Amino acid sequence: MQETEPGGPLLLRNARIATLDPARPGLGEIEGAAVLAQDGRIVFAGPEAGLPAHQAARVIDCEGRWVTPGLIDCHTHLVHAGNRAHEFELRLNGASYEEIARAGGGIVSSVKALRAASDDQLLAETLPRLDALLAEGVTTIEVKSGYGLDLENEMKSLRVARKLGEARSVSVRTSFLGAHALPPEAKGDRRAYLDQVISMLPAIKAAGLADAVDGFCEKIAFQPDEIALLFGAAQSLGFAVKLHADQLSDLGGAALAARFGALSADHVEYTSEAGAIAMAEAGTVATILPGAFYFIRETQKPPVDLFRRHGVAMALATDNNPGTSPLTSLLLTMNMAATLFHMTVEECLKGITLNAARALGLASETGSITAGKWADLAIWDIERPAELVYRMGFNPLWKRIWRGM
Amino acid sequence: MQETEPGGPLLLRNARIATLDPARPGLGEIEGAAVLAQDGRIVFAGPEAGLPAHQAARVIDCEGRWVTPGLIDCHTHLVHAGNRAHEFELRLNGASYEEIARAGGGIVSSVKALRAASDDQLLAETLPRLDALLAEGVTTIEVKSGYGLDLENEMKSLRVARKLGEARSVSVRTSFLGAHALPPEAKGDRRAYLDQVISMLPAIKAAGLADAVDGFCEKIAFQPDEIALLFGAAQSLGFAVKLHADQLSDLGGAALAARFGALSADHVEYTSEAGAIAMAEAGTVATILPGAFYFIRETQKPPVDLFRRHGVAMALATDNNPGTSPLTSLLLTMNMAATLFHMTVEECLKGITLNAARALGLASETGSITAGKWADLAIWDIERPAELVYRMGFNPLWKRIWRGM
Ligand SMILES: [Zn+2]
Ligand SMILES: [Zn+2]
Repeated sequence: MQETEPGGPLLLRNARIATLDPARPGLGEIEGAAVLAQDGRIVFAGPEAGLPAHQAARVIDCEGRWVTPGLIDCHTHLVHAGNRAHEFELRLNGASYEEIARAGGGIVSSVKALRAASDDQLLAETLPRLDALLAEGVTTIEVKSGYGLDLENEMKSLRVARKLGEARSVSVRTSFLGAHALPPEAKGDRRAYLDQVISMLPAIKAAGLADAVDGFCEKIAFQPDEIALLFGAAQSLGFAVKLHADQLSDLGGAALAARFGALSADHVEYTSEAGAIAMAEAGTVATILPGAFYFIRETQKPPVDLFRRHGVAMALATDNNPGTSPLTSLLLTMNMAATLFHMTVEECLKGITLNAARALGLASETGSITAGKWADLAIWDIERPAELVYRMGFNPLWKRIWRGM
Repeated sequence: MQETEPGGPLLLRNARIATLDPARPGLGEIEGAAVLAQDGRIVFAGPEAGLPAHQAARVIDCEGRWVTPGLIDCHTHLVHAGNRAHEFELRLNGASYEEIARAGGGIVSSVKALRAASDDQLLAETLPRLDALLAEGVTTIEVKSGYGLDLENEMKSLRVARKLGEARSVSVRTSFLGAHALPPEAKGDRRAYLDQVISMLPAIKAAGLADAVDGFCEKIAFQPDEIALLFGAAQSLGFAVKLHADQLSDLGGAALAARFGALSADHVEYTSEAGAIAMAEAGTVATILPGAFYFIRETQKPPVDLFRRHGVAMALATDNNPGTSPLTSLLLTMNMAATLFHMTVEECLKGITLNAARALGLASETGSITAGKWADLAIWDIERPAELVYRMGFNPLWKRIWRGM
């Protein structure tokens, strides 16, 4: 995590807070509340009457506004070059996948564009997307590599992801996703490329560029036994793991992730009941990505009822990427989860705060308004939290606070 | 239309323009283009080399950016009081319609809130929604009444709609939608209430508060013979007409609208081939509202292929309203039309410019970048127009120009 320069003591007064404190029911709402932060961390959150003695240099009168934890986008491919709008247009005009490939489309076009971009170009292209997220109160993001597909370009992606945290006031977690797709030069030899990915791990670890290792487990990508090899190597180096699992078919990816104690299994449209049970036992979060579901017109919905029944924590994220989810709004992500998957307001808000923090292994640092955590807060011009899920294309953010600043 | 104070001559240089000029194919694209405006109107749009002699006080170097016509939201219920986020939340929690009605939900709650609000309150509540639209390059909006349901409150709604055009640099067209629903005091006597609506027309005409008369033709609302009575009365007073038609069932609403030469038939999910043919012959625009389709989880899609085959012009709009489409983004509206209905990029962009102007009877004034029309323009930080449709929750607007200002 990048260095922080926490501000002096900060006091929020006259607030209604949705703490998302797991010790409280529902959204953990407190009316007439205050939040006191010191050295970038929350030292008090509760009824204003209980506020301890303090010397807050900065006081924000929330005038009754709602305060939530800063939002967390726990699954993005935010660092990428170019976009695939032309491919999108061709497909709407009826072009086949073959025609699109001939026109230079598909993931290969993203790989080419990323490899051709300098660090600075990549950063410049990514910042507007990050700024769109921050404008809606995001204080923590996860960013994956996976368009470099060789050591140099994977490291470039992760380096740029880290730089986002220097360029903006946001916490950044990175995941190494070398096992995203086969690069063109692999000429279809998946096993040889997987060995290459595994051989990249020590250098990435030594450079401190990744917090976790991720993979894409799918018929069209990497197989469960290959992911198991990757995860074994990753864990022996001390990496956390997470997995793109069961998006297009049930390969038992979620159960595999759970077997390795993965932080999260992501997409999970096809996850079976056995997979859900394994996730619950392992504490693996189900990260649901409605933007990709919607954009590729998927029809198999993630088994939200199974996750509920077995107590699997559900997170939500944008999955921002140029091919299947050019989405830069967590508010819209929540609306999609509610509209498309009937997730409740409480599940949606938990999904982009507390459970998103869990999916990043950061639940002790952020994701709820509780003493000890970073003072990551979003203050909203709304009358009730449900408005954040209900509206489409409207941003009621009043103020964003990252680590007390 | 409100008074305008057009700026002095304005020149846009070094632009790529998507003129939407119906005389040109596709989006009517011109590279290396200039746009010259005088007294709020376009006097030249074409290759920079062809620019006539001029004295432009203000010059904008577009640096190769794309310029489109200012966007037009041709179907909104933007003026309303309160929101229905709580109802949305209850429904996600499994509440029945009966339970929601008991909790004060449904359209009646919007009627109560609107009646209780003063002009100033209503304006203050509406402006943030309008500002969200304008931030994406909207230069013309349509606004309906329909939550007042008595003369005083319908006039209040239309008055506030007109005031939007004084408070912001935007062209406003208003539609009187007294025939939206039955007010509680009508106690189910639809015919008596319809007579009351018809009796409101002269006062609304005399006050100059409405440009068109609209109705909701549906089993659960007003029947075709009732709409015919309303339209006859409206036309005899010189009102244009438009209709909420065939949203939930096929009552032949689109054909009815066409028979009256309506500007548009809106929603049109259930419109038959006969309806489409009638619309094409009458020049009635099909206004497609994907936000409502998505939000209420409708499954019957509008017959886009029929509209194409018979040459019905298709417009797109937000249908912004608190009950079925709390949507304030025309960019997202386009993405939904492409994703949910397979509308092409060209159809989407035409739908929020030229065809939206047609749906408001304003095609001679706005909707394309052609000499003689208002200088309503949007300048975008994009590499190709398709990006406006492709992205979700991202606003690449660089500058908005309304009537040359
Ligand atoms: Zn992903
Ligand atoms: Zn409507």
